[in-house]
Amino acid sequence: MDTSPPLSPTPRSTVRRGAARARTDRAELHAVLDAGLVGHLGIVLDGAPVVLPTGYGRRGDTLYVHGSTGAATLRAAAAGAPVCLTVTHVDGVVYARSAFHHSMNYRCAVVHGTARVVTDPEELLLGLEVLTEHLAPGSWSATRRPTRRELAATALLALDLTEASVKVRTGPPVDDEEDLALPVWAGVLPLRTVLGAPEPCPLLPAGTAVPDRVLGRRA
Amino acid sequence: MDTSPPLSPTPRSTVRRGAARARTDRAELHAVLDAGLVGHLGIVLDGAPVVLPTGYGRRGDTLYVHGSTGAATLRAAAAGAPVCLTVTHVDGVVYARSAFHHSMNYRCAVVHGTARVVTDPEELLLGLEVLTEHLAPGSWSATRRPTRRELAATALLALDLTEASVKVRTGPPVDDEEDLALPVWAGVLPLRTVLGAPEPCPLLPAGTAVPDRVLGRRA
Repeated sequence: MDTSPPLSPTPRSTVRRGAARARTDRAELHAVLDAGLVGHLGIVLDGAPVVLPTGYGRRGDTLYVHGSTGAATLRAAAAGAPVCLTVTHVDGVVYARSAFHHSMNYRCAVVHGTARVVTDPEELLLGLEVLTEHLAPGSWSATRRPTRRELAATALLALDLTEASVKVRTGPPVDDEEDLALPVWAGVLPLRTVLGAPEPCPLLPAGTAVPDRVLGRRA
Repeated sequence: MDTSPPLSPTPRSTVRRGAARARTDRAELHAVLDAGLVGHLGIVLDGAPVVLPTGYGRRGDTLYVHGSTGAATLRAAAAGAPVCLTVTHVDGVVYARSAFHHSMNYRCAVVHGTARVVTDPEELLLGLEVLTEHLAPGSWSATRRPTRRELAATALLALDLTEASVKVRTGPPVDDEEDLALPVWAGVLPLRTVLGAPEPCPLLPAGTAVPDRVLGRRA
């Protein structure tokens, strides 16, 4: 059960356009984040926005992102520049009777904040475990752990889920009353992400079984 | 055939991390953009980045995005604030023999620039057609066109593909030589987006056939 407090919007995390689609339940924020693999991290470099995809992982109300210590965006975030991390799932194409009311069904979480550089060795390992397990559940305990050298090359940032918003659109098109009689098909074409058959690394010994931690995700 | 010039990197659009994954063929930029439905648009508001999902459409080397004339991000972009639009496809989870070398296969296009507000009535209609056809091919001619009132409520922005980069990762994990003998499964779990069965709007007359422009996308 998710017992965290509800989302308390700040001016920045208040959904203004399509406010009816805003959700304020923190469990929904968690669900949208947990369902994604990649977020889009925005940061300001030289006065201009840079938006790059990034893996992430969540533990409670903390998001972890990581990258090379040499990446300019991560360095700026580590230096205290404000960031925005957005995770979006497209769930369907919404066909309306007018071009104007065409839309998409989606779930979107937007997190604003300033990241904290994780330097504590214990939290560093924890954060990398969270990231690894988010991407590939079961992999942390099944694979070789990071070496001291690998840890030194990795920047881990923590972003608290204190300022966030969630927006969700579901359901059929919303057409104008006077268009309902038009002889035009309207409805939703659902989209979803599916996992294909595992492709073993060519360097694996022949006959190596695919473990449940991989196969089980396709169920 | 795509006869546009190759991508000429500026400092901002030069791929630094994982430079081996950079692509410089403009046709690859077009392909990554054309394969997506949603991009993530970054803009700076009050000194902080805001990243929001947005539909888009491409015509030649121009991207169109649109939204409500009341949206703060679009208003800032229309006023000349620099933007960044990023489109990412996640193609697979890359399982390595070490936690550190876990990765994702992906295609990502990043476009930097300053958007131009489209005010010319002809280009406005053209841009909306491009956007509609990108989201729902065939819908522009099959549905009711925008009214004067709808056009007035819509802000259309054009972003030229002059400063852009493309990054692609494909293939198996890249493990350290000394990890290859570990008894750990490694490989790729491919991901793809599939279209489900069309869900007709409940307000359609019973028996309305699903048109080819919708059904044909599932082939």
